[in-house]
Amino acid sequence: MPHNLPPHGYTAEKDAWLKRLRRIEGQVRGVHRMVEEDQYCIDVLTQISAIQSALKAVSLGLLDEHLNHCVVGAIEAAQESGDTTQVDDKLQEASAAIARLLKS
Amino acid sequence: MPHNLPPHGYTAEKDAWLKRLRRIEGQVRGVHRMVEEDQYCIDVLTQISAIQSALKAVSLGLLDEHLNHCVVGAIEAAQESGDTTQVDDKLQEASAAIARLLKS
Amino acid sequence: MPHNLPPHGYTAEKDAWLKRLRRIEGQVRGVHRMVEEDQYCIDVLTQISAIQSALKAVSLGLLDEHLNHCVVGAIEAAQESGDTTQVDDKLQEASAAIARLLKS
Amino acid sequence: MPHNLPPHGYTAEKDAWLKRLRRIEGQVRGVHRMVEEDQYCIDVLTQISAIQSALKAVSLGLLDEHLNHCVVGAIEAAQESGDTTQVDDKLQEASAAIARLLKS
Repeated sequence: MPHNLPPHGYTAEKDAWLKRLRRIEGQVRGVHRMVEEDQYCIDVLTQISAIQSALKAVSLGLLDEHLNHCVVGAIEAAQESGDTTQVDDKLQEASAAIARLLKS
Repeated sequence: MPHNLPPHGYTAEKDAWLKRLRRIEGQVRGVHRMVEEDQYCIDVLTQISAIQSALKAVSLGLLDEHLNHCVVGAIEAAQESGDTTQVDDKLQEASAAIARLLKS
Repeated sequence: MPHNLPPHGYTAEKDAWLKRLRRIEGQVRGVHRMVEEDQYCIDVLTQISAIQSALKAVSLGLLDEHLNHCVVGAIEAAQESGDTTQVDDKLQEASAAIARLLKS
Repeated sequence: MPHNLPPHGYTAEKDAWLKRLRRIEGQVRGVHRMVEEDQYCIDVLTQISAIQSALKAVSLGLLDEHLNHCVVGAIEAAQESGDTTQVDDKLQEASAAIARLLKS
Protein backbone atom coordinates (compact mmCIF):
# COMPACT_ATOMS: atom_id res chain seq x y z
CA MET A 1 0.00 0.00 0.00
CA PRO A 2 1.33 3.48 -0.78
CA HIS A 3 3.34 5.42 1.79
CA ASN A 4 4.18 9.12 1.87
CA LEU A 5 0.94 9.89 0.10
CA PRO A 6 0.45 13.35 -1.32
CA PRO A 7 -2.22 15.33 0.61
CA HIS A 8 -5.07 14.06 -1.57
CA GLY A 9 -5.63 11.15 -3.84
CA TYR A 10 -6.00 13.22 -6.95
CA THR A 11 -2.74 15.13 -6.57
CA ALA A 12 -0.72 12.51 -8.43
CA GLU A 13 -2.85 12.91 -11.53
CA LYS A 14 -3.43 16.60 -10.94
CA ASP A 15 -2.37 17.82 -14.36
CA ALA A 16 -4.65 15.37 -16.12
CA TRP A 17 -7.64 16.44 -13.99
CA LEU A 18 -6.90 20.13 -14.55
CA LYS A 19 -6.76 19.56 -18.29
CA ARG A 20 -10.06 17.71 -18.33
CA LEU A 21 -11.74 20.39 -16.23
CA ARG A 22 -10.40 23.09 -18.54
CA ARG A 23 -11.90 21.21 -21.48
CA ILE A 24 -15.27 20.95 -19.71
CA GLU A 25 -15.16 24.68 -18.98
CA GLY A 26 -14.65 25.21 -22.72
CA GLN A 27 -17.60 22.93 -23.48
CA VAL A 28 -19.85 25.00 -21.19
CA ARG A 29 -18.62 28.15 -22.92
CA GLY A 30 -19.46 26.45 -26.23
CA VAL A 31 -23.03 25.85 -25.07
CA HIS A 32 -23.25 29.52 -24.05
CA ARG A 33 -22.18 30.49 -27.56
CA MET A 34 -24.72 28.09 -29.11
CA VAL A 35 -27.58 29.68 -27.15
CA GLU A 36 -26.29 33.16 -27.99
CA GLU A 37 -26.31 32.26 -31.69
CA ASP A 38 -29.82 30.78 -31.44
CA GLN A 39 -28.64 27.34 -32.44
CA TYR A 40 -31.13 24.49 -32.50
CA CYS A 41 -32.37 23.38 -29.03
CA ILE A 42 -31.73 19.70 -29.67
CA ASP A 43 -28.10 20.40 -30.59
CA VAL A 44 -27.71 22.41 -27.39
CA LEU A 45 -29.15 19.50 -25.41
CA THR A 46 -26.76 17.06 -27.10
CA GLN A 47 -23.84 19.22 -26.02
CA ILE A 48 -25.12 19.43 -22.44
CA SER A 49 -25.42 15.62 -22.37
CA ALA A 50 -21.78 15.40 -23.46
CA ILE A 51 -20.75 17.75 -20.62
CA GLN A 52 -22.73 15.67 -18.12
CA SER A 53 -20.94 12.52 -19.28
CA ALA A 54 -17.55 14.24 -19.03
CA LEU A 55 -18.33 15.48 -15.50
CA LYS A 56 -19.55 12.03 -14.49
CA ALA A 57 -16.28 10.51 -15.70
CA VAL A 58 -14.30 13.07 -13.68
CA SER A 59 -16.41 12.35 -10.58
CA LEU A 60 -15.87 8.61 -10.93
CA GLY A 61 -12.15 9.09 -11.38
CA LEU A 62 -11.81 11.40 -8.37
CA LEU A 63 -13.91 9.05 -6.25
CA ASP A 64 -11.77 6.11 -7.29
CA GLU A 65 -8.59 7.94 -6.32
CA HIS A 66 -10.23 9.02 -3.07
CA LEU A 67 -11.06 5.44 -2.13
CA ASN A 68 -7.57 4.26 -3.10
CA HIS A 69 -5.73 6.97 -1.21
CA CYS A 70 -7.67 8.77 1.51
CA VAL A 71 -9.79 5.81 2.61
CA VAL A 72 -6.99 3.24 2.42
CA GLY A 73 -4.72 5.73 4.21
CA ALA A 74 -7.24 6.16 7.03
CA ILE A 75 -7.55 2.39 7.42
CA GLU A 76 -3.77 2.00 7.55
CA ALA A 77 -3.55 4.70 10.19
CA ALA A 78 -6.31 2.98 12.18
CA GLN A 79 -4.35 -0.27 12.12
CA GLU A 80 -1.46 1.48 13.82
CA SER A 81 -3.41 3.63 16.24
CA GLY A 82 -6.24 1.21 16.98
CA ASP A 83 -8.69 4.09 16.60
CA THR A 84 -11.19 3.42 13.80
CA THR A 85 -13.26 6.58 14.20
CA GLN A 86 -11.66 8.23 11.21
CA VAL A 87 -12.22 5.19 8.99
CA ASP A 88 -15.92 5.22 9.81
CA ASP A 89 -16.06 8.95 9.10
CA LYS A 90 -14.26 8.57 5.77
CA LEU A 91 -16.51 5.75 4.62
CA GLN A 92 -19.66 7.60 5.65
CA GLU A 93 -18.38 10.64 3.80
CA ALA A 94 -17.62 8.58 0.70
CA SER A 95 -21.08 6.98 0.76
CA ALA A 96 -22.69 10.40 1.09
CA ALA A 97 -20.67 11.65 -1.89
CA ILE A 98 -21.72 8.65 -3.99
CA ALA A 99 -25.36 9.30 -3.03
CA ARG A 100 -25.05 12.94 -4.08
CA LEU A 101 -23.55 11.92 -7.44
CA LEU A 102 -26.34 9.41 -8.04
CA LYS A 103 -28.97 12.03 -7.26
CA SER A 104 -27.41 14.98 -9.10
CA MET B 1 -51.05 28.71 -29.37
CA PRO B 2 -48.21 31.12 -30.14
CA HIS B 3 -47.79 32.67 -33.56
CA ASN B 4 -44.76 34.42 -35.02
CA LEU B 5 -42.48 32.26 -32.93
CA PRO B 6 -38.84 33.24 -32.61
CA PRO B 7 -36.53 30.76 -34.38
CA HIS B 8 -36.19 28.55 -31.33
CA GLY B 9 -38.08 27.96 -28.17
CA TYR B 10 -35.41 29.20 -25.88
CA THR B 11 -34.92 32.56 -27.57
CA ALA B 12 -37.61 34.26 -25.49
CA GLU B 13 -35.78 33.43 -22.28
CA LYS B 14 -32.37 33.74 -23.86
CA ASP B 15 -30.87 36.15 -21.34
CA ALA B 16 -31.88 33.95 -18.44
CA TRP B 17 -30.28 30.87 -20.08
CA LEU B 18 -27.09 32.77 -20.90
CA LYS B 19 -26.82 33.96 -17.31
CA ARG B 20 -27.29 30.45 -15.94
CA LEU B 21 -24.72 29.01 -18.34
CA ARG B 22 -22.25 31.73 -17.38
CA ARG B 23 -22.75 30.80 -13.74
CA ILE B 24 -22.16 27.10 -14.52
CA GLU B 25 -18.99 28.01 -16.41
CA GLY B 26 -17.85 29.85 -13.27
CA GLN B 27 -18.65 26.77 -11.17
CA VAL B 28 -16.49 24.59 -13.42
CA ARG B 29 -13.69 27.16 -13.12
CA GLY B 30 -14.18 26.96 -9.35
CA VAL B 31 -13.68 23.19 -9.42
CA HIS B 32 -10.53 23.70 -11.48
CA ARG B 33 -9.23 26.08 -8.79
CA MET B 34 -10.13 23.60 -6.03
CA VAL B 35 -8.10 20.85 -7.70
CA GLU B 36 -5.23 23.26 -8.34
CA GLU B 37 -5.19 24.18 -4.63
CA ASP B 38 -5.31 20.50 -3.60
CA GLN B 39 -8.64 20.91 -1.84
CA TYR B 40 -10.29 17.88 -0.32
CA CYS B 41 -11.64 15.34 -2.87
CA ILE B 42 -15.04 15.08 -1.23
CA ASP B 43 -15.52 18.86 -1.43
CA VAL B 44 -14.57 18.75 -5.11
CA LEU B 45 -17.13 15.98 -5.67
CA THR B 46 -19.81 18.00 -3.88
CA GLN B 47 -19.17 20.90 -6.23
CA ILE B 48 -19.32 18.66 -9.29
CA SER B 49 -22.67 17.28 -8.07
CA ALA B 50 -23.94 20.86 -7.81
CA ILE B 51 -22.85 21.54 -11.40
CA GLN B 52 -24.56 18.34 -12.59
CA SER B 53 -27.80 19.45 -10.93
CA ALA B 54 -27.55 22.92 -12.47
CA LEU B 55 -26.95 21.43 -15.94
CA LYS B 56 -29.85 19.04 -15.48
CA ALA B 57 -32.13 21.96 -14.62
CA VAL B 58 -30.99 23.82 -17.74
CA SER B 59 -31.60 20.70 -19.88
CA LEU B 60 -35.08 20.24 -18.50
CA GLY B 61 -35.89 23.89 -19.08
CA LEU B 62 -34.62 23.87 -22.66
CA LEU B 63 -36.46 20.64 -23.38
CA ASP B 64 -39.66 22.08 -21.96
CA GLU B 65 -39.37 25.15 -24.17
CA HIS B 66 -38.53 22.94 -27.13
CA LEU B 67 -41.69 20.87 -26.65
CA ASN B 68 -43.80 24.00 -26.17
CA HIS B 69 -42.44 25.82 -29.19
CA CYS B 70 -40.73 23.70 -31.83
CA VAL B 71 -42.88 20.60 -31.41
CA VAL B 72 -46.17 22.44 -31.04
CA GLY B 73 -45.15 24.62 -34.00
CA ALA B 74 -44.50 21.56 -36.15
CA ILE B 75 -47.87 20.10 -35.23
CA GLU B 76 -49.63 23.37 -36.10
CA ALA B 77 -47.86 23.46 -39.45
CA ALA B 78 -48.87 19.85 -40.09
CA GLN B 79 -52.51 20.71 -39.44
CA GLU B 80 -52.36 23.27 -42.21
CA SER B 81 -50.26 21.32 -44.69
CA GLY B 82 -51.60 17.86 -43.94
CA ASP B 83 -48.02 16.58 -43.96
CA THR B 84 -47.10 15.05 -40.59
CA THR B 85 -43.59 13.94 -41.51
CA GLN B 86 -41.99 16.83 -39.65
CA VAL B 87 -44.02 16.16 -36.51
CA ASP B 88 -42.84 12.57 -36.44
CA ASP B 89 -39.26 13.73 -36.96
CA LYS B 90 -39.50 16.32 -34.19
CA LEU B 91 -40.97 13.85 -31.71
CA GLN B 92 -38.39 11.21 -32.54
CA GLU B 93 -35.67 13.81 -32.11
CA ALA B 94 -37.11 14.92 -28.76
CA SER B 95 -37.32 11.33 -27.53
CA ALA B 96 -33.73 10.72 -28.56
CA ALA B 97 -32.64 13.87 -26.70
CA ILE B 98 -34.50 12.74 -23.56
CA ALA B 99 -32.81 9.33 -23.82
CA ARG B 100 -29.39 10.98 -24.10
CA LEU B 101 -30.08 13.12 -21.03
CA LEU B 102 -31.21 10.09 -19.04
CA LYS B 103 -28.07 8.20 -20.01
CA SER B 104 -25.56 11.03 -19.59
CA MET C 1 -51.72 11.82 -37.78
CA PRO C 2 -53.54 8.94 -36.10
CA HIS C 3 -57.30 8.99 -35.63
CA ASN C 4 -59.46 6.79 -33.42
CA LEU C 5 -56.61 6.47 -30.97
CA PRO C 6 -56.85 3.83 -28.27
CA PRO C 7 -57.30 5.40 -24.80
CA HIS C 8 -53.56 5.65 -24.19
CA GLY C 9 -50.44 5.69 -26.27
CA TYR C 10 -49.11 2.47 -24.91
CA THR C 11 -52.19 0.37 -25.57
CA ALA C 12 -51.10 -0.55 -29.08
CA GLU C 13 -47.92 -2.14 -27.78
CA LYS C 14 -49.52 -3.31 -24.58
CA ASP C 15 -48.47 -6.94 -24.80
CA ALA C 16 -44.86 -6.01 -25.36
CA TRP C 17 -44.86 -3.69 -22.31
CA LEU C 18 -46.54 -6.31 -20.14
CA LYS C 19 -43.93 -8.85 -21.14
CA ARG C 20 -41.06 -6.51 -20.36
CA LEU C 21 -42.55 -5.59 -16.98
CA ARG C 22 -43.03 -9.26 -16.14
CA ARG C 23 -39.36 -9.84 -16.95
CA ILE C 24 -38.32 -6.94 -14.70
CA GLU C 25 -40.48 -8.34 -11.91
CA GLY C 26 -38.58 -11.61 -12.33
CA GLN C 27 -35.26 -9.74 -12.19
CA VAL C 28 -36.26 -8.12 -8.87
CA ARG C 29 -37.26 -11.55 -7.56
CA GLY C 30 -33.82 -12.77 -8.70
CA VAL C 31 -32.11 -10.06 -6.64
CA HIS C 32 -34.23 -11.07 -3.65
CA ARG C 33 -33.00 -14.64 -4.07
CA MET C 34 -29.38 -13.48 -4.40
CA VAL C 35 -29.58 -11.59 -1.09
CA GLU C 36 -31.34 -14.53 0.55
CA GLU C 37 -28.50 -16.83 -0.58
CA ASP C 38 -25.84 -14.37 0.65
CA GLN C 39 -24.44 -13.89 -2.82
CA TYR C 40 -21.64 -11.40 -3.30
CA CYS C 41 -22.67 -7.72 -2.88
CA ILE C 42 -21.04 -6.59 -6.12
CA ASP C 43 -22.99 -9.20 -8.10
CA VAL C 44 -26.21 -8.01 -6.46
CA LEU C 45 -25.35 -4.42 -7.42
CA THR C 46 -24.67 -5.48 -11.01
CA GLN C 47 -28.12 -7.04 -11.18
CA ILE C 48 -29.77 -3.93 -9.72
CA SER C 49 -27.98 -1.81 -12.35
CA ALA C 50 -29.42 -4.07 -15.04
CA ILE C 51 -32.94 -3.60 -13.61
CA GLN C 52 -32.45 0.17 -13.53
CA SER C 53 -31.45 0.14 -17.20
CA ALA C 54 -34.44 -2.02 -18.12
CA LEU C 55 -36.82 0.31 -16.23
CA LYS C 56 -35.23 3.34 -17.87
CA ALA C 57 -35.80 1.79 -21.30
CA VAL C 58 -39.46 1.14 -20.44
CA SER C 59 -39.87 4.74 -19.21
CA LEU C 60 -38.36 6.15 -22.38
CA GLY C 61 -40.58 3.96 -24.52
CA LEU C 62 -43.76 4.88 -22.64
CA LEU C 63 -42.82 8.55 -22.74
CA ASP C 64 -42.20 8.36 -26.46
CA GLU C 65 -45.60 6.78 -27.05
CA HIS C 66 -47.19 9.34 -24.77
CA LEU C 67 -45.73 12.22 -26.77
CA ASN C 68 -46.74 10.60 -30.05
CA HIS C 69 -50.31 9.83 -29.00
CA CYS C 70 -51.65 11.79 -26.05
CA VAL C 71 -49.77 15.02 -26.71
CA VAL C 72 -50.26 14.99 -30.47
CA GLY C 73 -53.92 14.08 -29.88
CA ALA C 74 -54.39 17.04 -27.55
CA ILE C 75 -52.82 19.37 -30.09
CA GLU C 76 -55.10 18.06 -32.85
CA ALA C 77 -58.12 18.56 -30.62
CA ALA C 78 -56.97 22.09 -29.86
CA GLN C 79 -56.73 22.85 -33.57
CA GLU C 80 -60.39 22.00 -33.95
CA SER C 81 -61.69 23.56 -30.75
CA GLY C 82 -59.37 26.55 -30.60
CA ASP C 83 -58.85 25.85 -26.90
CA THR C 84 -55.19 25.19 -26.14
CA THR C 85 -55.54 24.75 -22.38
CA GLN C 86 -55.29 20.99 -22.60
CA VAL C 87 -52.17 21.14 -24.76
CA ASP C 88 -50.44 23.33 -22.20
CA ASP C 89 -51.51 20.97 -19.44
CA LYS C 90 -50.28 17.91 -21.32
CA LEU C 91 -46.91 19.45 -22.10
CA GLN C 92 -46.42 20.64 -18.52
CA GLU C 93 -47.33 17.16 -17.33
CA ALA C 94 -44.86 15.56 -19.77
CA SER C 95 -42.08 17.92 -18.68
CA ALA C 96 -42.76 17.13 -15.04
CA ALA C 97 -42.63 13.40 -15.81
CA ILE C 98 -39.28 13.82 -17.63
CA ALA C 99 -37.95 15.78 -14.64
CA ARG C 100 -39.04 13.01 -12.27
CA LEU C 101 -37.33 10.38 -14.43
CA LEU C 102 -34.12 12.40 -14.55
CA LYS C 103 -34.14 12.80 -10.77
CA SER C 104 -35.17 9.27 -9.85
CA MET D 1 -13.08 -2.49 13.30
CA PRO D 2 -15.40 -5.50 13.14
CA HIS D 3 -14.07 -9.01 13.56
CA ASN D 4 -15.75 -12.31 12.73
CA LEU D 5 -17.62 -10.65 9.89
CA PRO D 6 -20.51 -12.52 8.29
CA PRO D 7 -19.74 -13.60 4.72
CA HIS D 8 -21.02 -10.37 3.18
CA GLY D 9 -21.65 -6.88 4.38
CA TYR D 10 -25.35 -7.01 3.85
CA THR D 11 -25.98 -10.16 5.83
CA ALA D 12 -26.41 -8.30 9.10
CA GLU D 13 -29.31 -6.31 7.69
CA LYS D 14 -30.53 -9.12 5.49
CA ASP D 15 -34.13 -9.14 6.64
CA ALA D 16 -34.48 -5.42 6.03
CA TRP D 17 -33.07 -5.75 2.48
CA LEU D 18 -35.32 -8.71 1.70
CA LYS D 19 -38.34 -6.75 2.85
CA ARG D 20 -37.44 -3.76 0.72
CA LEU D 21 -36.84 -5.93 -2.33
CA ARG D 22 -40.18 -7.67 -1.80
CA ARG D 23 -41.86 -4.26 -1.71
CA ILE D 24 -40.11 -3.23 -4.95
CA GLU D 25 -41.23 -6.47 -6.58
CA GLY D 26 -44.78 -5.54 -5.58
CA GLN D 27 -44.33 -2.07 -7.06
CA VAL D 28 -43.25 -3.58 -10.39
CA ARG D 29 -46.30 -5.86 -10.28
CA GLY D 30 -48.38 -2.74 -9.62
CA VAL D 31 -47.02 -1.09 -12.76
CA HIS D 32 -47.83 -4.25 -14.71
CA ARG D 33 -51.43 -4.02 -13.45
CA MET D 34 -51.61 -0.31 -14.35
CA VAL D 35 -50.59 -1.04 -17.94
CA GLU D 36 -52.99 -3.97 -18.10
CA GLU D 37 -55.83 -1.70 -16.97
CA ASP D 38 -54.84 0.99 -19.50
CA GLN D 39 -54.13 3.52 -16.80
CA TYR D 40 -52.79 6.91 -17.77
CA CYS D 41 -49.18 6.89 -19.12
CA ILE D 42 -48.03 9.71 -16.87
CA ASP D 43 -49.24 7.86 -13.77
CA VAL D 44 -47.37 4.76 -14.94
CA LEU D 45 -44.22 6.86 -15.39
CA THR D 46 -44.61 8.33 -11.90
CA GLN D 47 -44.72 4.82 -10.46
CA ILE D 48 -41.64 3.76 -12.42
CA SER D 49 -39.78 6.82 -11.10
CA ALA D 50 -40.70 5.73 -7.57
CA ILE D 51 -39.32 2.24 -8.24
CA GLN D 52 -36.11 3.71 -9.62
CA SER D 53 -35.66 5.80 -6.48
CA ALA D 54 -36.32 2.77 -4.27
CA LEU D 55 -33.77 0.68 -6.22
CA LYS D 56 -31.24 3.51 -6.04
CA ALA D 57 -31.65 3.64 -2.26
CA VAL D 58 -31.10 -0.12 -2.01
CA SER D 59 -27.97 0.14 -4.21
CA LEU D 60 -26.53 2.92 -2.10
CA GLY D 61 -27.22 0.97 1.09
CA LEU D 62 -25.66 -2.24 -0.23
CA LEU D 63 -22.65 -0.33 -1.51
CA ASP D 64 -22.22 1.38 1.84
CA GLU D 65 -22.28 -1.96 3.64
CA HIS D 66 -19.90 -3.40 1.08
CA LEU D 67 -17.37 -0.61 1.67
CA ASN D 68 -17.73 -0.94 5.45
CA HIS D 69 -17.37 -4.71 5.53
CA CYS D 70 -15.77 -6.33 2.49
CA VAL D 71 -13.38 -3.50 1.63
CA VAL D 72 -12.38 -2.75 5.22
CA GLY D 73 -12.02 -6.51 5.78
CA ALA D 74 -9.70 -6.83 2.79
CA ILE D 75 -7.57 -3.95 4.03
CA GLU D 76 -7.31 -5.50 7.50
CA ALA D 77 -6.27 -8.81 5.98
CA ALA D 78 -3.65 -7.01 3.87
CA GLN D 79 -2.20 -5.40 7.00
CA GLU D 80 -1.57 -8.81 8.43
CA SER D 81 -0.42 -10.58 5.29
CA GLY D 82 1.42 -7.69 3.68
CA ASP D 83 -0.26 -8.59 0.37
CA THR D 84 -2.37 -5.71 -0.92
CA THR D 85 -3.47 -7.34 -4.18
CA GLN D 86 -6.91 -8.13 -2.83
CA VAL D 87 -7.42 -4.56 -1.59
CA ASP D 88 -6.66 -3.19 -5.03
CA ASP D 89 -9.03 -5.72 -6.58
CA LYS D 90 -11.83 -4.87 -4.13
CA LEU D 91 -11.46 -1.15 -4.68
CA GLN D 92 -11.38 -1.51 -8.45
CA GLU D 93 -14.48 -3.69 -8.24
CA ALA D 94 -16.25 -1.14 -6.04
CA SER D 95 -15.37 1.69 -8.42
CA ALA D 96 -16.66 -0.33 -11.36
CA ALA D 97 -19.92 -1.00 -9.49
CA ILE D 98 -20.33 2.71 -8.71
CA ALA D 99 -19.74 3.51 -12.38
CA ARG D 100 -22.39 0.98 -13.44
CA LEU D 101 -24.89 2.49 -10.98
CA LEU D 102 -24.19 6.00 -12.26
CA LYS D 103 -24.68 4.88 -15.85
CA SER D 104 -27.74 2.67 -15.32
